[in-house]
Amino acid sequence: MAHHFDGETSRRRPEELVVEEPLTVRINEVDVATTMRTPGHDFELAVGLLHADGALGGAAVTDIRYCATGTAVDTEFNVVSVLAPGAPEATPRLGVISSSCGLCGTEAIEDLVERISPVADAEPFLEDILLRVVSDVAGHQPVFDRTGGLHAAAAFDRNGTILEVREDIGRHNAVDKVVGRMLLDGRLPATGLGLFVSGRASFEMVQKAWAGGFTSVVAVSAPSALAVEAAQSANMQLAGFARNGTLNTYTTNRQPDSPPADAAAQGEPVS
Amino acid sequence: MAHHFDGETSRRRPEELVVEEPLTVRINEVDVATTMRTPGHDFELAVGLLHADGALGGAAVTDIRYCATGTAVDTEFNVVSVLAPGAPEATPRLGVISSSCGLCGTEAIEDLVERISPVADAEPFLEDILLRVVSDVAGHQPVFDRTGGLHAAAAFDRNGTILEVREDIGRHNAVDKVVGRMLLDGRLPATGLGLFVSGRASFEMVQKAWAGGFTSVVAVSAPSALAVEAAQSANMQLAGFARNGTLNTYTTNRQPDSPPADAAAQGEPVS
Repeated sequence: MAHHFDGETSRRRPEELVVEEPLTVRINEVDVATTMRTPGHDFELAVGLLHADGALGGAAVTDIRYCATGTAVDTEFNVVSVLAPGAPEATPRLGVISSSCGLCGTEAIEDLVERISPVADAEPFLEDILLRVVSDVAGHQPVFDRTGGLHAAAAFDRNGTILEVREDIGRHNAVDKVVGRMLLDGRLPATGLGLFVSGRASFEMVQKAWAGGFTSVVAVSAPSALAVEAAQSANMQLAGFARNGTLNTYTTNRQPDSPPADAAAQGEPVS
Repeated sequence: MAHHFDGETSRRRPEELVVEEPLTVRINEVDVATTMRTPGHDFELAVGLLHADGALGGAAVTDIRYCATGTAVDTEFNVVSVLAPGAPEATPRLGVISSSCGLCGTEAIEDLVERISPVADAEPFLEDILLRVVSDVAGHQPVFDRTGGLHAAAAFDRNGTILEVREDIGRHNAVDKVVGRMLLDGRLPATGLGLFVSGRASFEMVQKAWAGGFTSVVAVSAPSALAVEAAQSANMQLAGFARNGTLNTYTTNRQPDSPPADAAAQGEPVS
């Protein structure tokens, strides 16, 4: 129950609230991250998070399960243990981007360039397709409709058809759940597909889309400068402020029929 | 530069973007967290983050400085080193809430109950004061006005006067910067003061307000169920969906003149 104040009077009324619980993600028996999340699609979240961090290193996932050693019923669903033999030795997430005297944003991008190839050349999405996706996702957010408390992420195709939608109290988690689902289905890299994110396009959102191989990212709110720089390095289309029928495009893709920059510079023949 | 699409045509126009860079926080020479943040007020952010996590344990901060050992100019401002002799031995944040088989939300609250006293009894804020704060904070967000990309947090007093406002690409960081400033000024616990947060009221937002001793939290968007439960344990007023002249109140404070629950149950005289 909550008290609703309408500007003049206050009255009690029932309010449905979104659920939030901690989830610890474990790979090959080592805890690597704990995130506050909305329970549901936890296996996807765990795999998506590991994938975006490079913790799988291309190794296949052979088993995913909830913590089986606990005795407390309340908590056994708050640890997901992933087995991926051959994955790099796990380190807690803090260690991944820590160095003797910190890291600057450009170095964070260089780390990704070293670890992940740019996304495959593909046609960028048309603006009106991106805008249609943004308005369509709202129709796929059942929990948000009831609670107003959730972020959403969605994968969509060239025609604007929505393939997967996930909701979570954490923006990052919603993206991890979508990418994790696609990884488990063998649908990565997501060449030619787009990723919708509610809220802001931060560096980490672009990192996750890049690791998934998406051609395009469209965000409802603003991108950061580092997110734009990362999208450029990733050869990814990045659109933001997509709402009320307008949007901004910050970066675009190289198209399949365009020559690589160095070939053009050397004057090589182009088909 | 970005391409702005207005629903019909696309044209190039300059866009100012919000800056995002990683910051590593170190206490007594141990790295405990790396967060993506908007540079500025970094010392406040570091201290606020450590305080909310209980990493200071009541110890006084004797020195705060940027990493001094690095040679690269770009990165020396991306590590803040805090000295607080007598603070508990530092552990990376992951370890703090990790346990053999995970943690449930209720246990997360019990951990806080054990570590932090409930906030002091105080009069809850009037709804129209809270609504005025929400509309006033917008006037204090210079970077948001230009970029649309930042979250804000603010401390305010009983009359709705705004005492501190901080902006950051991360909601958590904005709150840490406000609480850190007040800690450095010797203004904690913030009894009788309120904390404004843009966006959602998650468990971690309430945790930070609780650690700061705030009487009230008001959020523009929805609280989670766990946030409401935490606010109840903290003896804190929690309001959400504060926009367009209306809001919901989920929990309220015990007032200074009300008897503690057990005294009332025992029939002790009440003034």
